[in-house]
Amino acid sequence: MDRTKPSAILLIHCPDQKGIIAKVTEFLSRHKGNIIDLDEHVDEREKIFFMRVEWELDGFAIAREEINDRFNEEIGAHYQMVWKLHFTGQKPGVALMVSKYPHCLYDILSRYQSGEWEIEIPLIISNHNDLSDIAARFDIPFYHLPINKDNKLAQEQQQIALLKKHDVDLIILARYMQILSGGFIKEYPNKIINIHHSFLPAFPGAKPYHSAYQRGVKIIGASSHYVTTELDEGPLIEQDVVRVSHKDSIQSLMRKGRDLEKIVLSRAIWHHLQHNVLVFKNRTVIFE
Amino acid sequence: MDRTKPSAILLIHCPDQKGIIAKVTEFLSRHKGNIIDLDEHVDEREKIFFMRVEWELDGFAIAREEINDRFNEEIGAHYQMVWKLHFTGQKPGVALMVSKYPHCLYDILSRYQSGEWEIEIPLIISNHNDLSDIAARFDIPFYHLPINKDNKLAQEQQQIALLKKHDVDLIILARYMQILSGGFIKEYPNKIINIHHSFLPAFPGAKPYHSAYQRGVKIIGASSHYVTTELDEGPLIEQDVVRVSHKDSIQSLMRKGRDLEKIVLSRAIWHHLQHNVLVFKNRTVIFE
Amino acid sequence: MDRTKPSAILLIHCPDQKGIIAKVTEFLSRHKGNIIDLDEHVDEREKIFFMRVEWELDGFAIAREEINDRFNEEIGAHYQMVWKLHFTGQKPGVALMVSKYPHCLYDILSRYQSGEWEIEIPLIISNHNDLSDIAARFDIPFYHLPINKDNKLAQEQQQIALLKKHDVDLIILARYMQILSGGFIKEYPNKIINIHHSFLPAFPGAKPYHSAYQRGVKIIGASSHYVTTELDEGPLIEQDVVRVSHKDSIQSLMRKGRDLEKIVLSRAIWHHLQHNVLVFKNRTVIFE
Amino acid sequence: MDRTKPSAILLIHCPDQKGIIAKVTEFLSRHKGNIIDLDEHVDEREKIFFMRVEWELDGFAIAREEINDRFNEEIGAHYQMVWKLHFTGQKPGVALMVSKYPHCLYDILSRYQSGEWEIEIPLIISNHNDLSDIAARFDIPFYHLPINKDNKLAQEQQQIALLKKHDVDLIILARYMQILSGGFIKEYPNKIINIHHSFLPAFPGAKPYHSAYQRGVKIIGASSHYVTTELDEGPLIEQDVVRVSHKDSIQSLMRKGRDLEKIVLSRAIWHHLQHNVLVFKNRTVIFE
Repeated sequence: MDRTKPSAILLIHCPDQKGIIAKVTEFLSRHKGNIIDLDEHVDEREKIFFMRVEWELDGFAIAREEINDRFNEEIGAHYQMVWKLHFTGQKPGVALMVSKYPHCLYDILSRYQSGEWEIEIPLIISNHNDLSDIAARFDIPFYHLPINKDNKLAQEQQQIALLKKHDVDLIILARYMQILSGGFIKEYPNKIINIHHSFLPAFPGAKPYHSAYQRGVKIIGASSHYVTTELDEGPLIEQDVVRVSHKDSIQSLMRKGRDLEKIVLSRAIWHHLQHNVLVFKNRTVIFE
Repeated sequence: MDRTKPSAILLIHCPDQKGIIAKVTEFLSRHKGNIIDLDEHVDEREKIFFMRVEWELDGFAIAREEINDRFNEEIGAHYQMVWKLHFTGQKPGVALMVSKYPHCLYDILSRYQSGEWEIEIPLIISNHNDLSDIAARFDIPFYHLPINKDNKLAQEQQQIALLKKHDVDLIILARYMQILSGGFIKEYPNKIINIHHSFLPAFPGAKPYHSAYQRGVKIIGASSHYVTTELDEGPLIEQDVVRVSHKDSIQSLMRKGRDLEKIVLSRAIWHHLQHNVLVFKNRTVIFE
Repeated sequence: MDRTKPSAILLIHCPDQKGIIAKVTEFLSRHKGNIIDLDEHVDEREKIFFMRVEWELDGFAIAREEINDRFNEEIGAHYQMVWKLHFTGQKPGVALMVSKYPHCLYDILSRYQSGEWEIEIPLIISNHNDLSDIAARFDIPFYHLPINKDNKLAQEQQQIALLKKHDVDLIILARYMQILSGGFIKEYPNKIINIHHSFLPAFPGAKPYHSAYQRGVKIIGASSHYVTTELDEGPLIEQDVVRVSHKDSIQSLMRKGRDLEKIVLSRAIWHHLQHNVLVFKNRTVIFE
Repeated sequence: MDRTKPSAILLIHCPDQKGIIAKVTEFLSRHKGNIIDLDEHVDEREKIFFMRVEWELDGFAIAREEINDRFNEEIGAHYQMVWKLHFTGQKPGVALMVSKYPHCLYDILSRYQSGEWEIEIPLIISNHNDLSDIAARFDIPFYHLPINKDNKLAQEQQQIALLKKHDVDLIILARYMQILSGGFIKEYPNKIINIHHSFLPAFPGAKPYHSAYQRGVKIIGASSHYVTTELDEGPLIEQDVVRVSHKDSIQSLMRKGRDLEKIVLSRAIWHHLQHNVLVFKNRTVIFE
């Protein structure tokens, strides 16, 4: 979807029951909302109904700030729904967290600069200083907060303070090589996107390219997921792979992997920014 | 979708207007139809609305044979809709047309025999006798109707007579190496599926592997499409590709291509059998 | 390579040293062997040299049965080489072991029947009787050897006796759902090819499609490997993947996976039959 | 290959004859050259032999500047060979030509800046001024040479003068939206790499995403090739594809295509820089 008129998006899930789609579409229709996109999914094992519906705000009879309440009253409460309401045309604040590898950072900043994504990037946070030059090239404030065993939680408090101060809606771990503490993660549920350099669940943890080489796989991958307190086990948003062979040294696996990583991460970010992603029980529904 | 209860499927398209989804879902809901799958799409350039909706027939208040009329009265006629109604649980009659290459034929018969597809295959038609042994192995009647310049239209009349006699709903050209006449094609609009051995529109016509070799492409493909009177230009249903290199001779392109051909063709057949495919202006909408 | 003249193939590995290629090519050249294909690889971490060289036997000055000795004397012994000598134009005996799933079996028999592979299939062995009809359709002797905890080793002795009797060179586990004992495996080192229904090392063991569904992966795969005593950890020969989404139930993952499994298995078999595969330390070098 | 010691690379082709590999390897061996990589290929239709051989210069008995002559005397002249000699460790001068789309430019400059490629980029040439800011961000001289019907050849003279002045070895058309004249192209045979935004030969010329949309393809691609005087028909170096569906508007095809374009272009550049590419009769042999 590539649209310019303002619209609203509802991401809904609830126990599956008869008539839910009809109820939701009738609600929007009755209040003069023109539906421009609707997709639904039923998880038949879990008996859960999922829906993404987008409608034009022009002519819609309910004011933006009242939609949540009216939807709750008329529908949501009756079906035990959990939902999120989004509006297009708002630029979310996105923070980047990086360490030493520049490829994902460059890729994100290039897209940002080109206007490919409707976002603001108010800051970059890093535990190393290596990439500060790139931040400077793109005129983004860079915060160097070194981390060691002793200062980790204190530095995270600093990070969170910065993120709050800059009103950040989404955090991207662009090859950030630190494990976030549970406390940090709970501040931003389903709002931290990581890129892992393997086709998870294969090769979790550190050094997946070394492991891939040792195992002699014929395909390597990259996986982007929301960060949860279970390391490398958060809900997967996007994965992709590339063929390799015995000719690939660990170094060439890394070289090929870098391209995968940056593309997979950027696709995951795109889906998140489009409000395409619903998370339920550690899995994602991606309405695209 | 892999379900066992009987359900009905509507494939709809019409000029895009406000409120269509609400109208259709309200219609189904009012008549006690439980929607189990709904997907819609708006072609924003053509301003056409597309929809696939599937609902359970158990408890639905309108008898099967009256659904078309009631839908027309209450909705279809008011929105200039074009639609098709399908019911699950009916085994369509499928005819195979082949020439000399066995790989797609084997693949289809293996799936048929394994019960992967809910179909009947009452006959195989061929312009050569080479594959009659395979038909015999799988106990399918095989009709050998040789074709030359002079007898082509007469033989096609024979073919059509056989297809009618066996009540065939779908014709699969499983590497059938004859061009069907316009008259034949018009008898079965969007009911003839062909597999072409290139990633169309590259290399249309005969000998695409030779052309791919000459051009030195790094990727070859296969394309499955509905047959129209424009050779190799019908609506594409499915395509897939595989990497090749300078090491591939024409023979090895053919070898790799055979696997592509059979898989791509079978995916296209699957979509057709699931009633996932809508055709509009030579393009397909595939609701999956 | 798709050739018809008789040729010989040497698959060699040895500690990496200067001048090995020159020595081998000089040896062949001096004895009037025309090299038609040469590929080499150096594993720079292990410092091991690998080579596949194929030359025409027409005009070659050394008789087939003396090549091994002469090569050993003039070169092999001087470089601590391990090598295997193969001749084209010989049809290896291939045994299939299956259980209940027919798709890989059908695929292999179709290729066999079409003459795609230069092999003989003297027998099919199964622990269930479900697929005996397919064997009958293709006129292959089918041995039903049911296996339970108590009779496993005894039945394996039966299987081995059958394999020896039929002079089998290669065993294909075409979704054979039993774990072979170490004793069996040691009889056929790097001569048993299995297909596993996941992109190993993700989801080893049973029920990988269920695990893939639970994990919410965006890609599923299949992996073909030589069987070793470490379950699902043998040297990988070929892997491939296909994209999936939240829309895929476990059943549809299985459906998509079946196509992957049969294609990946057949590619692995092809490489083995072409003598393209060298195994070293649980990894494969695939010269293609 | 990821090595640090200085080495030499020969890219050879000649009419296929017996004993060529032995001759070449014996030559290198006799002069104390340690072969670290050798790959050969025979085009059996054209009867042409291709070879890439790389050996260490440390200890090699022939001085760099004499290798060509000695090779010619001892071997090349006797086999009607055409060859090129390259040395690793030399940074080629690479010029970028761009117009208005920034994605390939950003991608190349990011790799350059990160040290991924061993090159110098002394200048960027553009017929528009839109991307001059990016050049400035990366501190690369930017030459704005607007082109219209009347000044085209004169401006190309300017461009060539700049390229000569900066001693450029490779020209990358990173979505440069002008057709180079034959005169320009002949100055740099197999030294101009273009990225075309379709899976050639499908959709040559302008607006391939519009054509792909109209045709309803299920896969889009990008193709990188050497520029010849036949528009979009030069030898293909690399291609890749991505799946699309009816949901993709032209704009989203473009969005997905941008990622393909930059990755495919960068892979082609990598192969060229590694001296992996041999061109013969409009096709490439890529030794990787």
